[in-house]
Amino acid sequence: MKGLLKLLAIIILFMGYSCKQNNSQEPHITPSESVTEIYDIELIEPLNWWVGFKNQELQLLVKHQEISKATPKINYSGVTIREVHKADSPNYLFIDLMISENTKAGKFNIEFVFENGESLTHTYELKARQKSPEEYKGFDSSDAIYLITPDRFVNANPENDIVETLNETTIDRTDGYKRHGGDIAGIINHIDYIHDMGFTAIWPCPLLTNDMPRGSYHGYAMTDFYEIDPRFGTMKEYLELSSKLSDKDMKLVMDQVANHCGLEHWWMKDLPFKDWVNYQAHYEKNKENWNGLVTKTSSHRRTSNQDLYASQVDKEDMTDGWFVSGMPDLNQRNPFMAKYIIQNSIWWVETANLGGIRQDTYPYPDKHFMSNWVRAIMTEYPNFSIVGEQWSYNPLVISYWQEGAINKDGYDSDLKSVMDFPMQQNIVDALNENEAWDKGLVKIYEGLANDFHYANPKDLLIFPDNHDMSRIFTQLGGDKINTKIALSYLLTLPRIPQVYYGTEILMDDFDNPGDHGLIRTDFSGGWKGDEVNAFTGEGLTADQKDMQSFLRKVLNYRKSSKAIHNGETMHFAPQNGVYVLFRILGDETVVHVINKNEGVTNLDLPRFNEIDLNGKTLKNIITDETIVWGDMLKLNEKGSMILTTKF
Amino acid sequence: MKGLLKLLAIIILFMGYSCKQNNSQEPHITPSESVTEIYDIELIEPLNWWVGFKNQELQLLVKHQEISKATPKINYSGVTIREVHKADSPNYLFIDLMISENTKAGKFNIEFVFENGESLTHTYELKARQKSPEEYKGFDSSDAIYLITPDRFVNANPENDIVETLNETTIDRTDGYKRHGGDIAGIINHIDYIHDMGFTAIWPCPLLTNDMPRGSYHGYAMTDFYEIDPRFGTMKEYLELSSKLSDKDMKLVMDQVANHCGLEHWWMKDLPFKDWVNYQAHYEKNKENWNGLVTKTSSHRRTSNQDLYASQVDKEDMTDGWFVSGMPDLNQRNPFMAKYIIQNSIWWVETANLGGIRQDTYPYPDKHFMSNWVRAIMTEYPNFSIVGEQWSYNPLVISYWQEGAINKDGYDSDLKSVMDFPMQQNIVDALNENEAWDKGLVKIYEGLANDFHYANPKDLLIFPDNHDMSRIFTQLGGDKINTKIALSYLLTLPRIPQVYYGTEILMDDFDNPGDHGLIRTDFSGGWKGDEVNAFTGEGLTADQKDMQSFLRKVLNYRKSSKAIHNGETMHFAPQNGVYVLFRILGDETVVHVINKNEGVTNLDLPRFNEIDLNGKTLKNIITDETIVWGDMLKLNEKGSMILTTKF
Repeated sequence: MKGLLKLLAIIILFMGYSCKQNNSQEPHITPSESVTEIYDIELIEPLNWWVGFKNQELQLLVKHQEISKATPKINYSGVTIREVHKADSPNYLFIDLMISENTKAGKFNIEFVFENGESLTHTYELKARQKSPEEYKGFDSSDAIYLITPDRFVNANPENDIVETLNETTIDRTDGYKRHGGDIAGIINHIDYIHDMGFTAIWPCPLLTNDMPRGSYHGYAMTDFYEIDPRFGTMKEYLELSSKLSDKDMKLVMDQVANHCGLEHWWMKDLPFKDWVNYQAHYEKNKENWNGLVTKTSSHRRTSNQDLYASQVDKEDMTDGWFVSGMPDLNQRNPFMAKYIIQNSIWWVETANLGGIRQDTYPYPDKHFMSNWVRAIMTEYPNFSIVGEQWSYNPLVISYWQEGAINKDGYDSDLKSVMDFPMQQNIVDALNENEAWDKGLVKIYEGLANDFHYANPKDLLIFPDNHDMSRIFTQLGGDKINTKIALSYLLTLPRIPQVYYGTEILMDDFDNPGDHGLIRTDFSGGWKGDEVNAFTGEGLTADQKDMQSFLRKVLNYRKSSKAIHNGETMHFAPQNGVYVLFRILGDETVVHVINKNEGVTNLDLPRFNEIDLNGKTLKNIITDETIVWGDMLKLNEKGSMILTTKF
Repeated sequence: MKGLLKLLAIIILFMGYSCKQNNSQEPHITPSESVTEIYDIELIEPLNWWVGFKNQELQLLVKHQEISKATPKINYSGVTIREVHKADSPNYLFIDLMISENTKAGKFNIEFVFENGESLTHTYELKARQKSPEEYKGFDSSDAIYLITPDRFVNANPENDIVETLNETTIDRTDGYKRHGGDIAGIINHIDYIHDMGFTAIWPCPLLTNDMPRGSYHGYAMTDFYEIDPRFGTMKEYLELSSKLSDKDMKLVMDQVANHCGLEHWWMKDLPFKDWVNYQAHYEKNKENWNGLVTKTSSHRRTSNQDLYASQVDKEDMTDGWFVSGMPDLNQRNPFMAKYIIQNSIWWVETANLGGIRQDTYPYPDKHFMSNWVRAIMTEYPNFSIVGEQWSYNPLVISYWQEGAINKDGYDSDLKSVMDFPMQQNIVDALNENEAWDKGLVKIYEGLANDFHYANPKDLLIFPDNHDMSRIFTQLGGDKINTKIALSYLLTLPRIPQVYYGTEILMDDFDNPGDHGLIRTDFSGGWKGDEVNAFTGEGLTADQKDMQSFLRKVLNYRKSSKAIHNGETMHFAPQNGVYVLFRILGDETVVHVINKNEGVTNLDLPRFNEIDLNGKTLKNIITDETIVWGDMLKLNEKGSMILTTKF
């Protein structure tokens, strides 16, 4: 935190701020351009705020020794203190500010006056917004997202591998559960690669500080919600990443966690309220020998969120239990915590010009809080996107969380996107199973038919695998052709596709399938001295090069295919090991033929007459060959063929 | 048919008919009490009709050589011929009658006058209704249905085993696919047994004539929709069955088939319209060597009914294809066929005082017809029940068909009940799988959680198995305790339970699991000379007796348990191999404890404190022991324990 504050202070000193001209008649607005900046207070969050939000309320968390004994004062036109809340700990204050509509951007001092007349001062800034709310455009079905585990992608800056002030100071590339040194600079350096592959967005796993003693390379045990982990880089680099992505019309999706923090989060040493985290009393009592045995961990019975018959105790076991013993469960029913999380999310969208949020462990926090959280963000950014992680293979459970779902309990999450775990499973089953009436390709045919139930199928996020799941190449038993089929299928679906880094070079976890460390293996070429370099192609096997090239072609075709982004979908029940899916928009028709037969297969085309393709010329987007749609399509071998009328 | 017509004529001669007194001011109503009955016409269907239906329209199918050349005339107060339709075959006429509100019950002659002045006459009867529409009460969650394959239950009348005028004249009890001789009289004789077991309704598989050359003992290849198969008995016996069930406050559920008929149906030799059945031209062309190879059979891709991406050709392959080669697919889009089926169903409800219909192969006919069919019946019988068979393990597909479902395509089936195949599968999985976080009892816990999605969960029909499925005892690997758990679980769920005959004596199909003939094995004691008699208990093994007694106790408790019929449901996530479900209504609480642990297990009760049972006395409905709800419940062994506060 302190490093960041220092940095901010420096940035502030060297920055002017733009005062937007407005037509206000308010005579009292006099931006305090000449405010003397003072930072007496240990911590105030959010670190800054902006003028011009729809929600004019702002709640500041103030942390400082005995600060509850002070009275805060602000003298800045448009900004009023509405209410000051003491917490259970004397070292916190929560200040409700009202920032009226015509408040000008600027800095002002908050003075904390103690009874004995002494005072402390903190300079706070309300920034001007850099673009209109509508311009924060979230990912959608026109995007393809590259998921990255930053510690394992590219280590561009070995200088930041070890930060001595943090709890975990070793790196060890031979250990899948230790840090390997990958960083933000590594991603920045390879935006071109990601862009050339055909991706239009990246989702790095969390980059915020995880100052945990061990195993926090994954980023999900945050110990500071406002700081980039220095081992990943700096705030400046994060903003550079965002800006360079933006230059290429690419989006930055931030991985956020509303459910929990890391056990070493700074507030765990001095919790503001008695109910700041769930099972707090139990934690306080047992923290000396805190481990999996004494932790009240979540039951993980996620269906209790939907279940009309669920007991109260099961609901509590699910949402209030800690995700794991090292991750205190935030109590979003505490209104101060709720505001804290919401403001933190908005702060990041606005600060880093985000193109989306991926929200971790979506069904674990209080679900009513989650919909308030979504609404708060979407109110400020109407074209934004958020995807929630709900790991379930049950379409009923997935659909429950999506905006527009008609739920019997009246719940409306307002969440645009949910992860389509059921379809991920269908794809794997479809390809691993031998064809039979109820096995094989029928799994994706019938799986896709379930779209009749989703409120907005094309807003679901589909993926062959992710950072928590065995690599698709492994899930498919090392079958390269099936891996191609899986990828090309999900890339032609009415969905938002996400591909995990390394999928393009057939990264696998055969040695211990499902092992998290192994799934998150270092990307070849990301470390100095790597013998194989996926960025240059050096040392890649023919199979790896072939897969990389295949994926690059499909993604790049997809990038401009409006039929794939928004077209109508029609598919034909698998017959004789062949399944055909059409995506259609205007004069663009994309045909995806999946053939599971090893030998030559002649596909009779008259069956597809209701798609008006007869006599038309289509191009195979992989081989560039053209064919004329007639009576028969010759499929030479097992595999995936994508044809298009538009080329 | 002819036998039935003769019988009807005889009955009519010996019957008066009741003219209900009404307050009509209509002066022209003069019931033709003295009509001379004449039956020149080969066939008119429906065989009779009633006065007093909401729908005053009636369409008669008239079949007779060259009848299209005749003009029908009716002279009966209140009855008007609205329209006469010729068919494609000259041997049919369809007459639209209007039966005005105050028409009196009675008989009248329909005269068919040919151009040459000759005429034929048919006496038609409009009967008075025997009870009010509201009194036709369908099955609901207060019922428990006994499913019977009539040919295999009891052969009470060996006289009707062989009917020489029919195509299949052999019986052979050693062959699972031949007729064994069971009959309606056999069911009538054992109503007491079924009643004592605790069932409140029976669903016999179809009893209508299946005059097929082979394999029609199951009844689903109907060759006459208005006739009881003489091998099962007579219409009189069917009505006696209904009446005797009624005397015991039990319901008769009729198994109907709107999708298809048997290939030997009388109309297949002279089809009224060119589109009376689907793929009719194809059939006419190929009927000489009609077999599985030339038949246009259904694709059975049932999801094409819901799938918004389904191609038209897939929809047609599904609904228009024949179910199997021996079952012509009725074309319900032909409006005369549609009326025929609807009137036939109403005719049976009214004639046999039905307590429900089970509709076969629900997703196979035109789905819009099916909802019209349901509406037509429910309009006449507002308290009636219909259950549709949709064999799918996908709750999305099941829920689509239930009344009240909110479907994206706007489809509303109006169907009260659908079969809960997904829960059936969950029960089997839950008991066959060893306990693990995502295996075993969690399958029923999470399966039941899916109720949040169904429009009306308690109107779903649940079953351990049925006539098309391996016996539950076999599905559970011969585990008697698991079989008890399965049965007691489904009997305490918010559902309409159905149990297949013989389940109570552990009937199995281990010799060839899933074999239809074997599933439908003869019920012990149903045939003269049977060494084992399940009705008397003679020769039953201890295990069989125990299961019979267990099921009898659970069913008889269920019969009067309003908490099970209509109570609130609450369940607790399985922990340590124990899963607890509560059903609560007023002062009745039913507790179902499922314990999968072999040894003694102590169940901590404070977890269930939100159910207010502390200090209350509960009775075990199987052992009659009582316990006081306190801190701990001792479970002595693996099994199912049902406790109740009401005894």
